Amino acid sequence: MKKPLIAEMISVGTELLLGEIIDTNAAFLGERLRDLGIFVYRRQTLGDNLERLVAAVKEASSRADLLVLCGGLGPTDDDLTREAIAAAVNEEPYVDDALLRDLEAKFAARKRAMPEGNTKQAWLIKSAGALANPVGTAPGWYVNKGGKIIVALPGPPNELTRMWCEQVEKLLPASGRVLYHRTLHTIGIGESDLAERIKEFTRLDSPGIGTYARNSGVDVRIAAAGESTDKARAVAEPVIREIELILAPWIFGCDDETVVSAIKKILDGRGQTFSCMESVSGGVLAAEITDCPGISSCFRGSLTAYANEVKIRAGVDAALIRQHGVVSAEVAVSMAVAAKKMFHTDWGLATTGVAGPAPLEGKSPGTAWVAVSGPNGESAAFVDWPGDRAVIRKRVCRTVFQSFLNAMKESK
Amino acid sequence: MKKPLIAEMISVGTELLLGEIIDTNAAFLGERLRDLGIFVYRRQTLGDNLERLVAAVKEASSRADLLVLCGGLGPTDDDLTREAIAAAVNEEPYVDDALLRDLEAKFAARKRAMPEGNTKQAWLIKSAGALANPVGTAPGWYVNKGGKIIVALPGPPNELTRMWCEQVEKLLPASGRVLYHRTLHTIGIGESDLAERIKEFTRLDSPGIGTYARNSGVDVRIAAAGESTDKARAVAEPVIREIELILAPWIFGCDDETVVSAIKKILDGRGQTFSCMESVSGGVLAAEITDCPGISSCFRGSLTAYANEVKIRAGVDAALIRQHGVVSAEVAVSMAVAAKKMFHTDWGLATTGVAGPAPLEGKSPGTAWVAVSGPNGESAAFVDWPGDRAVIRKRVCRTVFQSFLNAMKESK
Repeated sequence: MKKPLIAEMISVGTELLLGEIIDTNAAFLGERLRDLGIFVYRRQTLGDNLERLVAAVKEASSRADLLVLCGGLGPTDDDLTREAIAAAVNEEPYVDDALLRDLEAKFAARKRAMPEGNTKQAWLIKSAGALANPVGTAPGWYVNKGGKIIVALPGPPNELTRMWCEQVEKLLPASGRVLYHRTLHTIGIGESDLAERIKEFTRLDSPGIGTYARNSGVDVRIAAAGESTDKARAVAEPVIREIELILAPWIFGCDDETVVSAIKKILDGRGQTFSCMESVSGGVLAAEITDCPGISSCFRGSLTAYANEVKIRAGVDAALIRQHGVVSAEVAVSMAVAAKKMFHTDWGLATTGVAGPAPLEGKSPGTAWVAVSGPNGESAAFVDWPGDRAVIRKRVCRTVFQSFLNAMKESK
Repeated sequence: MKKPLIAEMISVGTELLLGEIIDTNAAFLGERLRDLGIFVYRRQTLGDNLERLVAAVKEASSRADLLVLCGGLGPTDDDLTREAIAAAVNEEPYVDDALLRDLEAKFAARKRAMPEGNTKQAWLIKSAGALANPVGTAPGWYVNKGGKIIVALPGPPNELTRMWCEQVEKLLPASGRVLYHRTLHTIGIGESDLAERIKEFTRLDSPGIGTYARNSGVDVRIAAAGESTDKARAVAEPVIREIELILAPWIFGCDDETVVSAIKKILDGRGQTFSCMESVSGGVLAAEITDCPGISSCFRGSLTAYANEVKIRAGVDAALIRQHGVVSAEVAVSMAVAAKKMFHTDWGLATTGVAGPAPLEGKSPGTAWVAVSGPNGESAAFVDWPGDRAVIRKRVCRTVFQSFLNAMKESK
C-alpha cells in the first residue's frame, strides 16, 4: 500500500472569521477528500492579510502533501490568495494571455467593460496550471512544485464544487487507497450506552469507528481503507454485520436514509398513510416530514393546533383537556386519534407540551407527551428534555418518530 | 486606547474535518468576538488526534492572547481537548470533587447511572476554572496562565452559545474599546439594489457598514468603535438615522427582532389573529412562526394540507384546482380564505407550489404562489426561485411574510 496523502485546507476571507458567512466549502471538501482516501489533518481560516496568509501557506505545505485554498481569488485588493501562494513558493506572477482573453470575452458576453482590477484573475505563476471556472470569472490554480500540490479555488460554493469535481479530482495523484464505509443511523439509544455496547470494535485500528450524536439520534460510521474496494470491504463488512446485530433494536437505516425516509419505506410497502396533529412542535414535525422528497405517497398533512379551541374543533375531547391538562398522555392520544379521522389516514401522530421559555399548567419547558394512533391501538410517550425552544421541539420530533417506528414494528 | 486582544479559535473533531457537520460555532464566536473589539486572526479545525492537537494549541497560544477551543469535551476516548490543553500548558489533570458531584446529580436527575467514561468531564487542571454547563453534561474550562487565556467549550451549539454569553464574556479582560452597533432588517429589496442606495455611507471608515443576505432578507449592520459607549454612539447614530430614512419602505425591525416578532407586535397592537394553510412550505411556515416565544397571543394554528383532498375538505374550492391547477393564484387565495374560516382568525396566509425535485403540473421546482387574506380583501404573490427543497421553502416563507407585512400596512 502506498503511503496515504495528507491534506490541509485553508479558507481565506475576513468575512469568514467575522462569522458573516458559514463555511460550507470546508464540509464539502472534507467529504470528497475522505472518499478519495486522502487524510485531512487540519483546516484553517485566515483573514485578508498577506503576511499571515503567506506564513500559513508555508507552514501547511511543509506539513501536508496537498494544500487546498478556498476563496480570495476575487478582483479586489483584499483578495490575496494568488499573491500569498506566489510568495510562499517564491515565484513571480505574470498575466497569462490566454486567460486574459477568456476573461475579456466573459465580460463582453455580459456586455460590460472589464474593470482594470480583474486583470489579476488572469495571473499565473510558472508552477501553476489554470483551472477553468465554468460559472464565475475567477480561474483557479493547480500548483505542482517540489512534490507538493497547492490547489486554489474560488469561494462561491457553486463555482468551487464544479471545479473540484470536474477538474481537480482528475489531476490529483491516485492515492492507491480506496475507502469503504457505512453509516448506521440509530434512534432511542444514548451515545455513551451505544459506545459501551460496541467498545470491543471501537478499539480496532481498522475499520475505524466513530459515533456521532445527531438531531435524529446517534450515528455509527464504520470505515476501512484498502488497495481495492474488495479489500477494504473485506475488512469493514464483518464488523459492520456484528455491529448491526448488536444495535438492531435501534437501527432505522444507513447512509443516505433518514428517519422519515425509513418511515416512508415501511408505509409505502404496506400501502398505509399517516398524518399529524401538532401543538408543542408547532409545524416542526410536518417540516421534518415534508423535507423528504416524495413523502406525499404516504403523508396526507398535519394540523398545527396551537390554540386549544382549534384542537377541540378538530375533534379533541374538551373534557380530557379540563380533566388532565393539555400536556397529558390522554390529550396526546386524543389528538393522534383526531388526526387519523380528520386526514382519513391509517396512522396519526401527535405532540403536546411546553416549548418555553414560560412554564404551562405548572409544567416546565421540555415537558411533553407524544402519541401514536394506529390500526391496532394507541400509545403515548413522555418527553422530559430541558433546553431552548429549538432543542425541545427537535427532541419531541425525535421521540414521536421513535414511537412511530416502534408501533409499526409491533403491528407487523 | 489599549492594544486590542488577538484571538484564535480551534474547533476539534474528526467529524468536522470529514465534512459530516458544518461548524456554526465558528461563525457565532466570530461575531461575538468582533463585537467585543477582539481581533480574530486565525481559526483552525483539527481531528481527534492528541499529538497534532497539542502542537496546534501551543502554536496558537504563542501567537494569540486568547484561544477558544470548541468541542472534544465529550466522555469518550476520542474527546481529547482537556488532554491537549493540559499537555500544552504542562499541567496534570485531576478529578474535581464538586464537578464530579454535579455530574452524578445530572445523571441521577435523568434516572441513569453515570458511565465510567464520563468521569473525565469532572477533570480540571490547576490553572483552569470550570464553566458550568446549564444544558449538557460537559463543563467548560477557563484557563488563565502566563498572560494567555484558553477557553474550552463543548461543541453542541446550544450549550456553547449559552456558556459563552452567560459566563465567558464576563470573565474576559476588558478590551478598552467599546463597540456600538445596530443591525437593520429589511425584506423585499435585493442586496445590490440596497447597497447602491446607501453607497455614500459604505465608503466611510467609521462607522463600518456591512450588508448581509439572510434567509429573512438583507441585513445592514452599522458599527462604530470608541473609548466609551457615548463616543461610539455619537459616531454611529447619525448614520443609522440616515440609512433608516433611505430604507424605510423595506425595514421591518432591528437587532434581535425577527420578521415574526415584527408581525406579532403589529397584530398584538391591533388585537388581531392569524393562521395559515400550507402546501409547498409543508410546516416550515408554522415552524418559523412558532419559533417566536409568546406567538400564541396572535397565532391560532396552521394546516399543512399536503394532499389535495385535505385542501378540499378544509374548504378550498375543488373547481378552482381543476380549472387553474393547484399551483395558482386562485387556489392560493382560496386556501388563505379557508384558513381564516377554519381557524376563526382575522388574517389567513397560504402557500402552494413546487418544492421539487420533480416538477408538478408541468411547473418547475421553485415555482409557487403565496396569498394573504385579511379584513379588507385578498392578495397573491408569485415566487420563482429555483434551488433545493430547503431553499425553495424558506424563500416561499419570506415572500408570504413580506406580503403579510405589506397587507397590514395597507389595512391600517
